[in-house]
Amino acid sequence: MAVALPPGVTEQAMGRAIEAFARALGPDAVLTSEQDLREFRDPYAYVGWDEFTAGAVVMPSSVEDVRAVVRIANEHRVPLWTFGQGRNYTYGGPAPRVRGSVLVNLRRMDRVLEVNEELAYAVVEPGVRFFDLHDALRGHRLWPSVPDIGWGSVVGNTLEHGRGYTAQGDHASSVCGMEVVLPDGDVLRTGMGAMAGGTSWHVNQRGFGPSPDGLFMQSNFGIVTKMGVWLMPQPEVYLSCFARVPDDAAVAALADALRGLMLEGVIRNYPLLGQGVGIGDDEGTAAVGEASHWALRFALYGRRAVVDAQYAAVEAAFADVPGLELSRRTYAGHDLSGVTNHDDKVQCGIPGMELMERFEEPYGEATGHLDLSPVSPATGREVVAMVERLRTLYGDHGIPYVAGLIFSARSVLHITTTFFDTRDEAQTRRVYDAYGHLVRALAAEGYGLYRTNLMYMDLVAEQFDFNDHAQRRFNETLKDALDPNGILSPGKQGIWPRHLRPAR
Amino acid sequence: MAVALPPGVTEQAMGRAIEAFARALGPDAVLTSEQDLREFRDPYAYVGWDEFTAGAVVMPSSVEDVRAVVRIANEHRVPLWTFGQGRNYTYGGPAPRVRGSVLVNLRRMDRVLEVNEELAYAVVEPGVRFFDLHDALRGHRLWPSVPDIGWGSVVGNTLEHGRGYTAQGDHASSVCGMEVVLPDGDVLRTGMGAMAGGTSWHVNQRGFGPSPDGLFMQSNFGIVTKMGVWLMPQPEVYLSCFARVPDDAAVAALADALRGLMLEGVIRNYPLLGQGVGIGDDEGTAAVGEASHWALRFALYGRRAVVDAQYAAVEAAFADVPGLELSRRTYAGHDLSGVTNHDDKVQCGIPGMELMERFEEPYGEATGHLDLSPVSPATGREVVAMVERLRTLYGDHGIPYVAGLIFSARSVLHITTTFFDTRDEAQTRRVYDAYGHLVRALAAEGYGLYRTNLMYMDLVAEQFDFNDHAQRRFNETLKDALDPNGILSPGKQGIWPRHLRPAR
Repeated sequence: MAVALPPGVTEQAMGRAIEAFARALGPDAVLTSEQDLREFRDPYAYVGWDEFTAGAVVMPSSVEDVRAVVRIANEHRVPLWTFGQGRNYTYGGPAPRVRGSVLVNLRRMDRVLEVNEELAYAVVEPGVRFFDLHDALRGHRLWPSVPDIGWGSVVGNTLEHGRGYTAQGDHASSVCGMEVVLPDGDVLRTGMGAMAGGTSWHVNQRGFGPSPDGLFMQSNFGIVTKMGVWLMPQPEVYLSCFARVPDDAAVAALADALRGLMLEGVIRNYPLLGQGVGIGDDEGTAAVGEASHWALRFALYGRRAVVDAQYAAVEAAFADVPGLELSRRTYAGHDLSGVTNHDDKVQCGIPGMELMERFEEPYGEATGHLDLSPVSPATGREVVAMVERLRTLYGDHGIPYVAGLIFSARSVLHITTTFFDTRDEAQTRRVYDAYGHLVRALAAEGYGLYRTNLMYMDLVAEQFDFNDHAQRRFNETLKDALDPNGILSPGKQGIWPRHLRPAR
Repeated sequence: MAVALPPGVTEQAMGRAIEAFARALGPDAVLTSEQDLREFRDPYAYVGWDEFTAGAVVMPSSVEDVRAVVRIANEHRVPLWTFGQGRNYTYGGPAPRVRGSVLVNLRRMDRVLEVNEELAYAVVEPGVRFFDLHDALRGHRLWPSVPDIGWGSVVGNTLEHGRGYTAQGDHASSVCGMEVVLPDGDVLRTGMGAMAGGTSWHVNQRGFGPSPDGLFMQSNFGIVTKMGVWLMPQPEVYLSCFARVPDDAAVAALADALRGLMLEGVIRNYPLLGQGVGIGDDEGTAAVGEASHWALRFALYGRRAVVDAQYAAVEAAFADVPGLELSRRTYAGHDLSGVTNHDDKVQCGIPGMELMERFEEPYGEATGHLDLSPVSPATGREVVAMVERLRTLYGDHGIPYVAGLIFSARSVLHITTTFFDTRDEAQTRRVYDAYGHLVRALAAEGYGLYRTNLMYMDLVAEQFDFNDHAQRRFNETLKDALDPNGILSPGKQGIWPRHLRPAR
């Protein structure tokens, strides 16, 4: 029997739903024991908290299975919560926003359905991990884009606006063509896939009429069951580059130079500028949060002569940045056997687990961390102001500032993180409380987060308040139209179905 | 009084609506005389057809005016049809899908609200023309992306998936942040603009939660009143490049080489490969449709040394294409005074009217043309197959094949066109009838159009038939939820509100 029940769902209704899931998917595809469910808790919450506890887990193997799950959920009015791998630990992992929800665990849908070398794309199911996609590309001259930790779902990461570090590192922008099971069980294909037998589903990002793809990201409007992912062709030469500056004083000049290089297309990947996160630290010996220098990693890809000219342009652009040291490691694109360290790996699409190991240093396996990631414009002035703002805000809570800034040409994602011992409730609570304070303080100055943890989805959504929360009204209108019974991931990103909507 | 009435709208209701529009916007902002309305007919239809005749025109000057228009339309159940400039003549210009609709002419909303040089973007209202944006960028080191004809609306072109030819030439991908008046009069800002005072509205393409921007393109779900547009920084050097091959035999090899160069980032703009459309024809003397050779134009932008290395890479990649002749013209990015011909202008963002003049050669000002633009994958094999398919299909109707292929790295837009004399009904009808036949024949092989004329919106939408028209069901669900009275642009892209939905 389920250990946690969703609001308004009786033990009997949940029982009937679970029986129906087992009939439809087979008994081995349904988990309900307390022991089985423990694997799916919020991994970085205090171990004693149980607000985000699932009621059961179902494991569809096919689109038809997903449709059956949705139909049964509608029939019994049971809330679902979906995940591809559930590895976005700092955001809640596989755990549901609403206690007692039935987890739709998509790990069994793990096929790479197509790899197209000429057109540089792959088609994946939601259970495909970055490791799996990388494996599927062996023998092809194609590189995937991977985030810092490789065990996550390609689809899951992408739908949450996750990021990687190759030229296709803005994963949401690299999507081309989705198949989606809607909350009522209907199956939609987007773009050119909306035509049966459409030949351009994964090569053209739009079709005829409106493009709904963005609606299925960070939302609860559908379950993505197939997705086209654009890849980058293996270049002739890959330069993994590093720039180091001694302290904050040089960051504005560095950011301005970097923005120029990105806007003009010299740097086409997504650079990471970090303090205290070990970038460019070959030996991996500096403890997290200890260093005071800033380090930037970025990459150049292409023909030898082009890359050489680009590197010279980088040298020229960085010449006036005070105290900057520039270095690079050069690899042939067709032979990555010498690529062994984390920074070099992620910039050429090789997934790994190194960062996970590093992040467990503070308290071993009990280490949790909570990421807070506001977006700022990419001018040096704005970047430095945000660094100072965050350093002060964290300082007010006695928390050190640890940051990795992912640069796009025009905006920067300031990923900051705080480590704590998940066995220590008071310590964990302090970090969570500080987070809430920071969210409000940032919003007061016009800065929003790009993503957040289960605990703060409502608070972060609340900050998006233009025109008395027009975005929320719009999302609720869509939610009511697409999911009238409110069964799909209620509360995700602060979007609630009518029957669970908080009074305002 | 209005000369044409929408279905189900009485003369009295229309009269009351027009009075209300005049009260809200001022009498000079409402046009109803037959003579005034003539300017807004479908410019390339046979002169005697009147299916797409407007009932009135309203000219809002502000977001509040647009909201008032929408409120009045809801009150009187009068259908609206919006346009920025209404210059997409081959698709129907400013004319409405539903006879008698009230045109929402946005030409008075013509302000460039912001130009941000550091972050390379502008914010425009929907009446801003490419000419206007170009003017507003004088003194800035920024280039806009412009289509072949410069008098259209930046917003209008972008929302219809229009294309330009710089590195930001995929206009829909270069949008960052919209303000939208919804059919119920509510005002939504997307992305980071959903936060009041949000600092990253036009630099980060997503916010928190789902991204609806794609929903407001090629649709009737809202009226876009502000839009952020990403621009490209003025490069040190601009190379306007041309490749010419004698006949079809070389097109496969050319397309494959081109795709490789685009996938690896050597060519970052949107090349155009044409036959009979005068590309690279300095003197502009070849009549449309006459040439048998193929000509490709593309551009390189950047530091001198980088561009030189890239041009060498292009030479190497094109070396094996049979009979190819490559040439280039080199300009300093800061001095475009020597850029005078059409091809060189559009690749560095200078708007013009040359193509309009050329396209009027066949029958003078009475010349119409109907564009049919299927999408194919960008492999040489697929490109050649589509060329042959279209040549055969057009040939079946005795129509010459005239084409401009816009290349992206993975897909190609095959823009083909047919000229006719709009004073000749039989000739015009033959071209339209052929179009319908081609739409069906292409769809039978899995190829869809990226955009179409008023007359064929239903037919083209009908071809997007996966899962018994799941896309149509989805669009109708959204339409009913967002626009329950069905007042906004009914029938656009085949999306009909409930009360006008054809029986199926």
